[in-house]
Amino acid sequence: MGNLAPWRSPLARALHRNRSLIYARYLQLATVRSDGTPANRTVVFRGFGPDQGQDQDQGLGDRLRFVTDRRSEKIAQIAANPAAEACWYFPKTREQFRLAGRLRAWQGGDLDAVSGDGTGGAKLRSRLWQALSAAAQLQFAWPSPGGDRQDLDQNPDAFNPPPPDAIAPPDTFAVLELEPHRVDWLQLRGDPQDRICFWHDGDRWHQRNINP
Amino acid sequence: MGNLAPWRSPLARALHRNRSLIYARYLQLATVRSDGTPANRTVVFRGFGPDQGQDQDQGLGDRLRFVTDRRSEKIAQIAANPAAEACWYFPKTREQFRLAGRLRAWQGGDLDAVSGDGTGGAKLRSRLWQALSAAAQLQFAWPSPGGDRQDLDQNPDAFNPPPPDAIAPPDTFAVLELEPHRVDWLQLRGDPQDRICFWHDGDRWHQRNINP
Repeated sequence: MGNLAPWRSPLARALHRNRSLIYARYLQLATVRSDGTPANRTVVFRGFGPDQGQDQDQGLGDRLRFVTDRRSEKIAQIAANPAAEACWYFPKTREQFRLAGRLRAWQGGDLDAVSGDGTGGAKLRSRLWQALSAAAQLQFAWPSPGGDRQDLDQNPDAFNPPPPDAIAPPDTFAVLELEPHRVDWLQLRGDPQDRICFWHDGDRWHQRNINP
Repeated sequence: MGNLAPWRSPLARALHRNRSLIYARYLQLATVRSDGTPANRTVVFRGFGPDQGQDQDQGLGDRLRFVTDRRSEKIAQIAANPAAEACWYFPKTREQFRLAGRLRAWQGGDLDAVSGDGTGGAKLRSRLWQALSAAAQLQFAWPSPGGDRQDLDQNPDAFNPPPPDAIAPPDTFAVLELEPHRVDWLQLRGDPQDRICFWHDGDRWHQRNINP
């Protein structure tokens, strides 16, 4: 594993200091569509990986984890182009992290692949699935996201399906892992503001103070 | 002008209902870099355009305005690829707008061009410049954003320059205008959540209810 990336402690500290705001765990994830235009949506941070059993916010890894429906557009976008940039603004401490890197999707068919934990992707999916609330789990049994809205007159139970298995994730459940290779940390509170750029050259992390 | 786009009233309402949170005016703007990877950063909403003199949040236009430093990377990105997607999450009302469209930059050299207001770009730039605080104006006289951090031992006044003219914008001041052609509005409060997709076909706006 080696050491933590130099931006990981500041990011964990921001999470901690903003923990009273539930939406401080929401960030915006940009990918590129097949037509070359950008896509951008809010996702919920689900912890760092590989975590090797530690508390998810304080784990050993430098990867950011999210969960998504495998039927969502971003799954197809990532398969064609894994490049992504997450933008994470923390309202209370007034700081921004821009995290550029590659996204990896862990889906139901990846049972034999090895996750960043050195465990099967199946184990990773199971763990993040079991950490969801029952209401969040239920959404993975809903009709396809982005599809024509289900007519509740014709299909009254479309959004009230039998609850999925609480232990074994359904095929619609996917885990996303972002592995950053460049991070831009801006702290608005300074005067002038502090801004540090971190980048990984394939061997190790470097950092440089830059103008805000 | 014609009528407002059908997503404009919901967006203005969200702005109004979240007005107690200063950061509800912050959104994330994704563009594409020249190497085909996405870029994503937080920007501050500066009003709708064309506004024809109305209150900026309630103006007649369907375009979203931001200000930026013309030395920032996004200016070069937009020149090569004007496609953008803004992601705007409103914490208090728990709703998200994803606004995909084209970005236009108004810079110092655009004096003769006509903005969406039917005025010269110079007038648009002047108005948004004069709406900035003195502290915000000062940043446009700072060293180039993203460049190596100025050494305050060698250049102690790098971030304390003479204040720029409060009336006439400097060449570093640029206005960005996003003209959306597709908007995805998600309201998390419903059960199931409500989600509407709006799109402009070159002639008029259409809308469709979709699955969340």
